[in-house]
Amino acid sequence: MSVTAPTPDEPASRSGSPVFDLHVGGKMAITCTVSLKDRDDLSLAYTPGVALVCEAIAAEPALVDDYTWVANTVAIVTDGTAVLGLGDIGPAAAMPVMEGKAVLFKQFGGVDAIPICLDTTDTDEIVETVARLAPSFGGINLEDISAPRCFEIEQRLKERLSIPVFHDDQHGTAVVALAALQGALALTGRVAATTRVVISGAGAAGVAVARILLAAGVRDLAVVDRRGVLSSRRHDLTPVKRALAVDTADVTGRSGTLAEILVGADVFIGVSGGTIAEEVVATMADDAIIFGLANPNPEVHPDVAHRHASVVATGRSDFPNQINNVLAFPGIFRGAFDVRATSITEGMKLAAAQALAGLVETEIRPDYIVPSPFDPRVGPAVATAVAHAARQDGVARR
Amino acid sequence: MSVTAPTPDEPASRSGSPVFDLHVGGKMAITCTVSLKDRDDLSLAYTPGVALVCEAIAAEPALVDDYTWVANTVAIVTDGTAVLGLGDIGPAAAMPVMEGKAVLFKQFGGVDAIPICLDTTDTDEIVETVARLAPSFGGINLEDISAPRCFEIEQRLKERLSIPVFHDDQHGTAVVALAALQGALALTGRVAATTRVVISGAGAAGVAVARILLAAGVRDLAVVDRRGVLSSRRHDLTPVKRALAVDTADVTGRSGTLAEILVGADVFIGVSGGTIAEEVVATMADDAIIFGLANPNPEVHPDVAHRHASVVATGRSDFPNQINNVLAFPGIFRGAFDVRATSITEGMKLAAAQALAGLVETEIRPDYIVPSPFDPRVGPAVATAVAHAARQDGVARR
Repeated sequence: MSVTAPTPDEPASRSGSPVFDLHVGGKMAITCTVSLKDRDDLSLAYTPGVALVCEAIAAEPALVDDYTWVANTVAIVTDGTAVLGLGDIGPAAAMPVMEGKAVLFKQFGGVDAIPICLDTTDTDEIVETVARLAPSFGGINLEDISAPRCFEIEQRLKERLSIPVFHDDQHGTAVVALAALQGALALTGRVAATTRVVISGAGAAGVAVARILLAAGVRDLAVVDRRGVLSSRRHDLTPVKRALAVDTADVTGRSGTLAEILVGADVFIGVSGGTIAEEVVATMADDAIIFGLANPNPEVHPDVAHRHASVVATGRSDFPNQINNVLAFPGIFRGAFDVRATSITEGMKLAAAQALAGLVETEIRPDYIVPSPFDPRVGPAVATAVAHAARQDGVARR
Repeated sequence: MSVTAPTPDEPASRSGSPVFDLHVGGKMAITCTVSLKDRDDLSLAYTPGVALVCEAIAAEPALVDDYTWVANTVAIVTDGTAVLGLGDIGPAAAMPVMEGKAVLFKQFGGVDAIPICLDTTDTDEIVETVARLAPSFGGINLEDISAPRCFEIEQRLKERLSIPVFHDDQHGTAVVALAALQGALALTGRVAATTRVVISGAGAAGVAVARILLAAGVRDLAVVDRRGVLSSRRHDLTPVKRALAVDTADVTGRSGTLAEILVGADVFIGVSGGTIAEEVVATMADDAIIFGLANPNPEVHPDVAHRHASVVATGRSDFPNQINNVLAFPGIFRGAFDVRATSITEGMKLAAAQALAGLVETEIRPDYIVPSPFDPRVGPAVATAVAHAARQDGVARR
């Protein structure tokens, strides 16, 4: 009875490439979770039966979460302006990444996710569009939207909507980086409050990593963009960078270039791209910690980093200690959805990082500071911790 | 490895109702169509491999149809203003119907469909929002948007987008009604050109049924709204009704109330709700044809209709001859997607109706003028006819 879509013909030129072969027809599909074998089935799932469910929701709107797929469904929203390391490639070319994200949401979090690639890069239009779509979804995952627009878009949507809004390039990265840093600090006998940290990059990821490290107790933190350490003495800062300067270099009084600030630093976290010269890396403190997260080319290649550091992490899957967002976002949304959270709080993000760190705590080694994405404990552990934190923070609706 | 969403707790008050029990957690879900077992899988479906696909699409945008799910995915877009017979119940309460529609798209057409319930009823905002979403979808199915806004929204989106835009309440109903009428005319020895048809209702369905009957050769057609036959002599008509009057009553010179115009009419098609008195029905021509399509209460109950007509159809599944859109929309989009049509033309709709009529032609009886929705021939037959018509009309991209 059911009709199947034919497999698209693959353009001959790319046939034989494992990546292109795998992508023919896309990576996801819809399935019906109810039976549709006969008229009786149809009269329950569709007319006339469905009218009873519509009427119940019209009378009591919260029932939409019980009787539709909305409460388990997230929109992955992008404008295609900051896709992977490829930059502004537009909404159509962004789709394979968004589908990839959607299958990770399902596989690792049991979350139904829909890629929404928008044909606008205007901040107001993106906010308005997402707000109008919101009744269809239980949460919004913003993805690959370039800074600084991503900050305003997330902020405005959080204020406007009573469902979780989460910019994964910021907060997913931040959660996993914090988890990894906690392991690295333990391995090198450090504590957050007295560790000197330098973050290279003040885009979406850099700002969010800085914020979560401050929330986790780091006090000596410098964030560096192309022109040096963010400090209020500079007159070229966006509002987001200025606010961050106030909470970082303005507190410590530090300034200078990346090379200057790295002298004696305990931790380097790169989320900027570019390459740090080995002689600069060599000036860091003993037992240094180096996270070069740019993909595919880390700011400090692991071979170089290991000559000057005790703990090394990257964003790559072919080296140990991969800082991979997939450790965070599926479990974060799973936990938020399980308690029907109205937002994702700082406490929920910290709890997610703590849960990840906890999974490796007893076996921690310099080449094992975060769990594997394929560790089956990851999604449930993050979800449980996030759900608990949502209740503590008063944003759980059940 | 994969994490499953827990089944939501059902509110106790509704537990035990078959309709509510079936709707717990919704009726649809996402599935991954690729393997995600290990790092190698991840490196193909996600980073770094996926970047190759993104770059290919950035260089050659049409490849999005080959390497993502877009070309097989339709957005079901509503503002919740005209849901079933329930009226303006809003976007959240509309969701169960849109999910029902989505599972029918999948089951009967192999089409992946995503419900998009919008938090706006403003015509400009709906048009802008859908246009911005369009890169994510291979087609747009407008649903349960009230008249007359639905006409302008569809028209503007058709002009703006190069993917199929289809308002099912109009054209799905029209296609199936035409198919049924062709069977009824054959059974009663009539031909379209000399048959006198009255349509009660000038909303989305009434206008579209009128337009397709004109395209199929009906010449003596009157469309009636609450104030009587649409005619240019009236000064209360919307632009859409006025244009229809020019092509119907203005040609025949007919006017009057519904009761007056039904005297001697061959065919009555009700898409308005309300009830026609039996003494009015009794004034129709011998061997009359009566389609009372309002749900759940047909304009003429079948028991009454059978006393005065030779062929009777309704919108209900519990009587013979159900005029059900599910006979049309899954196959229409399947056919349009199979050839990557840029729009759905009048020719494609007529071809869909012809395909439906063709399926019952050799076995036609007064109680069997359209096939069952569960007849496995329906989806493929409609799709094949629609794809062929798309090629003939020059809107197929392959």
